Amino acid sequence: MADEVKLYGVAGSPFVCRVKIALNLKEIKHEFVVEDLSNKSAHLIKYNPVHKQIPVLVHNGNPVSESLVIVEYIDDAWKGVPVLPQDAHEKARARFWAKFVDDKCIPAVFMAIGSHGQEQAVAEAHDQLQFLENELKDKKFFGGDSINLVDISAVFLAFWLGAAEEALGIKIVTKDKFPNLTKWSDNCINCQAVKDSLPPRDDLVSFFKMRFGKA
Amino acid sequence: MADEVKLYGVAGSPFVCRVKIALNLKEIKHEFVVEDLSNKSAHLIKYNPVHKQIPVLVHNGNPVSESLVIVEYIDDAWKGVPVLPQDAHEKARARFWAKFVDDKCIPAVFMAIGSHGQEQAVAEAHDQLQFLENELKDKKFFGGDSINLVDISAVFLAFWLGAAEEALGIKIVTKDKFPNLTKWSDNCINCQAVKDSLPPRDDLVSFFKMRFGKA
Repeated sequence: MADEVKLYGVAGSPFVCRVKIALNLKEIKHEFVVEDLSNKSAHLIKYNPVHKQIPVLVHNGNPVSESLVIVEYIDDAWKGVPVLPQDAHEKARARFWAKFVDDKCIPAVFMAIGSHGQEQAVAEAHDQLQFLENELKDKKFFGGDSINLVDISAVFLAFWLGAAEEALGIKIVTKDKFPNLTKWSDNCINCQAVKDSLPPRDDLVSFFKMRFGKA
Repeated sequence: MADEVKLYGVAGSPFVCRVKIALNLKEIKHEFVVEDLSNKSAHLIKYNPVHKQIPVLVHNGNPVSESLVIVEYIDDAWKGVPVLPQDAHEKARARFWAKFVDDKCIPAVFMAIGSHGQEQAVAEAHDQLQFLENELKDKKFFGGDSINLVDISAVFLAFWLGAAEEALGIKIVTKDKFPNLTKWSDNCINCQAVKDSLPPRDDLVSFFKMRFGKA
């Protein structure tokens, strides 16, 4: 029997995008089910009763929630291109950095965006991003020659951040200060599995203008 | 060559305890290096330059940080009693609940303790704990007949919470409201790998009196 794979989400979510990238990497056919976040479906609430949040992946009727948990699930459940390194220590490093992106970078960058580039918020975001800058060194991806869990976790920084910067007329990540992250962003969004997972950039720019723009 | 395994931590930390439990489950000999958190060692800062926090596990010179990342690392790097289920979906469930304990339960319970059992804070903690209560059902452990990642992640609830309740003369988790969690706490702290990892309860009670008690 063929696998039945459904992904519940919305087009503009970077967390849903993480799951799409992993599904694309593994070449897994799936149905994308659009959720109305202002009127969540009975399916979403049934499948993720704890958080009632997207993304949720439902594989042959079994739901999995939390974007990084889903990405690891996809890596465990399907063969093909690996998402995590095989070596135990490298695997732990990847998990460490993916968690760092979630716990430190995305909140700090979100504060910097939400504050319209207020100096202190940007400085705090820079402090966190500097760790990623140093970790990248001259690698093409966090995963080396190909993307791994860390690149997937950081897709918000590669794509969403630039759209927010454009929408608000601010610059948080400059090429001068973050040359490695700047190169990485280009590499990341040009990776086929990522490119095929991204929402239209113009729509994102419009979204950020509506969400954070001054009237 | 025998493995060299060092764990940097302090006796009273539930996050360090998670790592000890995993090391005990796998019967891994290790050296415990006590950190002075008011004057962190050059080793700690070198091994965990991002967070400068305990626990850090150093295995043959390679450091791993973040307690749940370390526990998964131990499971990946050593054979023996498994910490995570083998089935991909069960594994994802375990990761989901361990993350839930970290993201929702421990912060809510900590707020309830810090507020000395203030009604709204306790109600919020109860809301989160109810999910664990329901997940446990009549199982001995979250992992079923033996402990897994979720039990390890929740050791704060099994042991530290009771010590805090005693120190402050409050009760957050009652047997009436949380019969499954109450039974589970007993089962958990009587599991040998856990029992061998816990700090002396009297010291914890004293710690909570000093940290949160009214003068």
